[in-house]
Amino acid sequence: SKFEYVRLFETEDRCLPNSWIVVRVDGKGFHKFSTEHDYEKPNDLRALSLMNNAAMSVMEEFKDICLAYGQSDEYSFVFRKETQVYSRRSAKLSTNVCSLFTSAFVYYWSEHFPTSKPLYPPVFDGRTVLYPSNQNIRDYLSWRQADCHINNLYNTTFWALILKAGLTPVEAEQKLKGTLSGDKNEILFSQFSINYNKEPEMLRKGTILVRRKVPIALPDGGTREKSQIVQQHTDIIGDEFWNENNHLLTIS
Amino acid sequence: SKFEYVRLFETEDRCLPNSWIVVRVDGKGFHKFSTEHDYEKPNDLRALSLMNNAAMSVMEEFKDICLAYGQSDEYSFVFRKETQVYSRRSAKLSTNVCSLFTSAFVYYWSEHFPTSKPLYPPVFDGRTVLYPSNQNIRDYLSWRQADCHINNLYNTTFWALILKAGLTPVEAEQKLKGTLSGDKNEILFSQFSINYNKEPEMLRKGTILVRRKVPIALPDGGTREKSQIVQQHTDIIGDEFWNENNHLLTIS
Amino acid sequence: SKFEYVRLFETEDRCLPNSWIVVRVDGKGFHKFSTEHDYEKPNDLRALSLMNNAAMSVMEEFKDICLAYGQSDEYSFVFRKETQVYSRRSAKLSTNVCSLFTSAFVYYWSEHFPTSKPLYPPVFDGRTVLYPSNQNIRDYLSWRQADCHINNLYNTTFWALILKAGLTPVEAEQKLKGTLSGDKNEILFSQFSINYNKEPEMLRKGTILVRRKVPIALPDGGTREKSQIVQQHTDIIGDEFWNENNHLLTIS
Amino acid sequence: SKFEYVRLFETEDRCLPNSWIVVRVDGKGFHKFSTEHDYEKPNDLRALSLMNNAAMSVMEEFKDICLAYGQSDEYSFVFRKETQVYSRRSAKLSTNVCSLFTSAFVYYWSEHFPTSKPLYPPVFDGRTVLYPSNQNIRDYLSWRQADCHINNLYNTTFWALILKAGLTPVEAEQKLKGTLSGDKNEILFSQFSINYNKEPEMLRKGTILVRRKVPIALPDGGTREKSQIVQQHTDIIGDEFWNENNHLLTIS
Ligand SMILES: Nc1nc2c(ncn2[C@H]2C[C@H](O)[C@@H](COP(=O)(O)OP(=O)(O)OP(=O)(O)O)O2)c(=O)[nH]1
Ligand SMILES: Nc1nc2c(ncn2[C@H]2C[C@H](O)[C@@H](COP(=O)(O)OP(=O)(O)OP(=O)(O)O)O2)c(=O)[nH]1
Ligand SMILES: Nc1nc2c(ncn2[C@H]2C[C@H](O)[C@@H](COP(=O)(O)OP(=O)(O)OP(=O)(O)O)O2)c(=O)[nH]1
Ligand SMILES: Nc1nc2c(ncn2[C@H]2C[C@H](O)[C@@H](COP(=O)(O)OP(=O)(O)OP(=O)(O)O)O2)c(=O)[nH]1
Ligand SMILES: O=P(O)(O)OP(=O)(O)OP(=O)(O)O
Ligand SMILES: O=P(O)(O)OP(=O)(O)OP(=O)(O)O
Ligand SMILES: O=P(O)(O)OP(=O)(O)OP(=O)(O)O
Ligand SMILES: O=P(O)(O)OP(=O)(O)OP(=O)(O)O
Ligand SMILES: [Mg+2]
Ligand SMILES: [Mg+2]
Ligand SMILES: [Mg+2]
Ligand SMILES: [Mg+2]
Ligand SMILES: [Mg+2]
Ligand SMILES: [Mg+2]
Ligand SMILES: [Mg+2]
Ligand SMILES: [Mg+2]
Ligand SMILES: [Mg+2]
Ligand SMILES: [Mg+2]
Ligand SMILES: [Mg+2]
Ligand SMILES: [Mg+2]
Repeated sequence: SKFEYVRLFETEDRCLPNSWIVVRVDGKGFHKFSTEHDYEKPNDLRALSLMNNAAMSVMEEFKDICLAYGQSDEYSFVFRKETQVYSRRSAKLSTNVCSLFTSAFVYYWSEHFPTSKPLYPPVFDGRTVLYPSNQNIRDYLSWRQADCHINNLYNTTFWALILKAGLTPVEAEQKLKGTLSGDKNEILFSQFSINYNKEPEMLRKGTILVRRKVPIALPDGGTREKSQIVQQHTDIIGDEFWNENNHLLTIS
Repeated sequence: SKFEYVRLFETEDRCLPNSWIVVRVDGKGFHKFSTEHDYEKPNDLRALSLMNNAAMSVMEEFKDICLAYGQSDEYSFVFRKETQVYSRRSAKLSTNVCSLFTSAFVYYWSEHFPTSKPLYPPVFDGRTVLYPSNQNIRDYLSWRQADCHINNLYNTTFWALILKAGLTPVEAEQKLKGTLSGDKNEILFSQFSINYNKEPEMLRKGTILVRRKVPIALPDGGTREKSQIVQQHTDIIGDEFWNENNHLLTIS
Repeated sequence: SKFEYVRLFETEDRCLPNSWIVVRVDGKGFHKFSTEHDYEKPNDLRALSLMNNAAMSVMEEFKDICLAYGQSDEYSFVFRKETQVYSRRSAKLSTNVCSLFTSAFVYYWSEHFPTSKPLYPPVFDGRTVLYPSNQNIRDYLSWRQADCHINNLYNTTFWALILKAGLTPVEAEQKLKGTLSGDKNEILFSQFSINYNKEPEMLRKGTILVRRKVPIALPDGGTREKSQIVQQHTDIIGDEFWNENNHLLTIS
Repeated sequence: SKFEYVRLFETEDRCLPNSWIVVRVDGKGFHKFSTEHDYEKPNDLRALSLMNNAAMSVMEEFKDICLAYGQSDEYSFVFRKETQVYSRRSAKLSTNVCSLFTSAFVYYWSEHFPTSKPLYPPVFDGRTVLYPSNQNIRDYLSWRQADCHINNLYNTTFWALILKAGLTPVEAEQKLKGTLSGDKNEILFSQFSINYNKEPEMLRKGTILVRRKVPIALPDGGTREKSQIVQQHTDIIGDEFWNENNHLLTIS
């Protein structure tokens, strides 16, 4: 029709080739959402397992995602450098990942929360970011895991002071102002007998999703390999993880 | 931390000022999704009302959306030219709208479909497109409504031939090959006594959402004005709609 | 060859359709360049006529430039909204205009400056900017002409204080600090008997280049119309210019 | 002023960090320009040395260009990955490089061509392209050098057939249609006793500009190191050049 010219106003937004593509989603206003849904403080295991569940759905759909990392109300999806999915169109990638993540979050809600439904539809924003080198993508993931550590150490101490020592939020904030990591570890240990390093790894490190080849038993007694998505809660800042998973950073 | 430099790899994507911003969402693989969920053919009123419900949620959240238009598995949201929401960041707009639309679609599913849940999480893609002039944005909406008309006339005839005349899909396709609008109207009328122009407007025209000031009765007997989102299924290609809604195209 | 894949790393950069495209060039380090080439202060007529000459060359080459505006070391070229030159590719437009402007500036240097050559190759940067509406493009040009006025009034007064009243640059700057337009007009008039409004229009208003149809005498005694580029130094902030040139803002 | 808002219509165009930035300039319509200025066929040494001269000017100005490569009417400038010049703004880089190249080309024309002036101002377009990895930037340069080789072998044979064997251009074209490199080498050798591999390296390989530390004799008899731009005409497709210049691909 004579109206079709309007199609030409769409812009091309293909990502630079040979670069890591990260799509990160982050919950919109989850400070309020977590409060309204009585998330446990500082960490709600139901909320985290729902996040992981939603992320698994995304990774099952997009085979070119080689690794995902999640913590708090956010998840990062790393597409392999060479992916041609959606011709690397930036908006297609961010909206499809973000929509599927959101959809699965609502869809699987009741499997993680006893209440049958959230109070209103939860929302996640999404963005596409490019990283040219292996060092850059590692630093990106380190950035998110370091963020997880800092926030979790703070939140753990903050809520211990409130829930166990009876401080008000204002008093707890005051007490933690200007403290370093060591100070918080010390407060936790001396005041609450909590050895922070013994806290569950999922809370301290976040969740890493990667694909593993696992052997599947065949009826005839043999086995075959199958790719499966597994969850880990290990350190991804140091070299160990990358040495063990060196296929991730080499061209496939 | 020393990893924070990776933040700088994000790119600015602000939309050109003083242009209409459209965010269009479209169901991913809804040919398959509609079949698997037994959508009625050619149109499923439950599906359309669910789409409208999800769109209402988006419009309630984003006050700067002045009009939305939906048909089939898609919805277009028109932000007013001057909007500063998310500083006009393109990815923020498309992902937030797309995520909320998807979330509401799953959230309100059971209110429209007897089955309690979809078989899997449905997905919508999203995109941001700019239109500089009033004529351009009108032509954009005309493009979508003309698309609605063409598809609906085709589908109505196609499914009448199959469901009422017993043709196979291949035979129906064959019969419609090369036909013009007039031919399809004729087939509908002569073979099935269907006057296409009497078909429900929602199917022929799609759904327009706009805000209306409605009077609200006050306890003291007076009234006050309140803005409310209303659904219409009128023509938006001709001038009449735009004359009646001339506030839409003038700066607010 | 097997290296050709690198071509795919180039990005599409087409300008939004139906928008005014402005390419502005600006001399690089012309504070230094003007000093080293003994530009007269505050305005050097040779420099300005060379700028105009270079701009004429650009406008002769690109027929879709409907108006150009120049002042100081800068020139803005306005392409008509519908232009398809270089498929509206942003970098093609800015680099071609910028290169031709620079080339002509060096090429025609000796016609304007007695010295046969500049001391080193002069450089201009370039940029492409989009304006959706007629009001926006008028405001853009008003911005540049207002800038011309403000700078020229300041410079005229500044250099009168130095060259005619014997102040040092520091003293002149001090004297003008915080003054309004009226104050500068007053200084010029009372101290130097200069009526600023009688200063040459080219200096106060800058230079506008537009195309005019002019009658050409034919050998047979008849006439035909020919398009020619003319220079004006009139106000383009008010309505008069735009009323007289209303073809500029209507679709051609 | 109230017009300043138009500044906001400019878009950010910063290049992705940690990527090689190439600015390539290419003569506009040099098929015509070379003919009109009687460039010798197939290669004009004056033209090539003028190109090299212009490129040297660019490289002297932009210290972050670590390598430049030129052939025919084009030159590519490679900025080091970490450059922060103009905050990596794409249009700033392409227009400044392109303008300076053009300016120097006109400026130094008379030093290379006996005629004092070109017939009209020559123009070069410019573009910015990003390459994430060392392999990509090497492949980019290999692409340009392979292009040089293919064109030069073709042109050398083509013009030998015309200038030495008296063929018309159409006949020469016909004769070369479908020939491989080996065929052209054979024609050159058997018909014109030209050993293509003995042709000047500048014509076969193009020109590479790199910086070299050279010892400068000091008055006191000692020496100090100074960086200087040198021209080479070697192969840059194989590893040898990169082994000898391994500082180029390592972070500086
Ligand atoms: N209590 C509790 N809160 C959580 C948990 N996971 C995330 N949250 C909350 C803590 C933070 O207030 C919020 C995430 O921080 P953000 O920086 O993403 O802020 P928020 O989502 O409110 O705003 P945004 O829309 O992202 O700008 O979610 C949890 O397991 N338990
Ligand atoms: N039966 C039925 N089908 C519908 C209805 N609404 C939409 N659909 C189907 C018809 C089309 O096959 C499909 C929409 O067409 P699209 O061009 O968006 O294709 P699809 O979503 O399959 O692929 P895509 O992922 O968008 O490229 O949805 C409905 O009310 N009833
Ligand atoms: N004396 C004199 N100076 C002029 C004339 N036209 C322009 N200029 C000088 C005055 C300013 O210092 C300079 C233009 O100002 P800009 O803001 O463009 O600064 P400049 O080119 O130095 O730096 P840039 O590379 O553009 O950031 O050129 C003239 O006719 N006479
Ligand atoms: N005779 C002669 N011609 C040359 C020499 N160097 C370059 N040229 C000519 C040969 C080609 O026709 C032309 C360069 O080819 P291009 O693909 O850049 O085409 P052209 O510049 O005509 O068009 P463009 O504006 O770049 O699309 O310049 C030379 O040394 N001698
Ligand atoms: O935490 P982020 O990455 O979402 O960063 P932010 O400070 O929330 O900024 P924005 O979401 O506006 O990019
Ligand atoms: O119908 P649209 O607008 O989604 O157009 P398309 O042909 O599906 O293309 P794409 O979704 O790839 O932009
Ligand atoms: O005067 P302009 O438009 O060049 O503005 P600027 O302040 O010089 O900024 P830039 O040239 O860096 O865009
Ligand atoms: O040879 P190039 O790189 O200039 O490629 P082209 O085919 O001339 O294309 P364009 O200059 O239009 O990008
Ligand atoms: Mg955020
Ligand atoms: Mg959040
Ligand atoms: Mg968050
Ligand atoms: Mg589509
Ligand atoms: Mg669809
Ligand atoms: Mg659709
Ligand atoms: Mg500037
Ligand atoms: Mg300047
Ligand atoms: Mg200037
Ligand atoms: Mg080209
Ligand atoms: Mg060329
Ligand atoms: Mg060329």
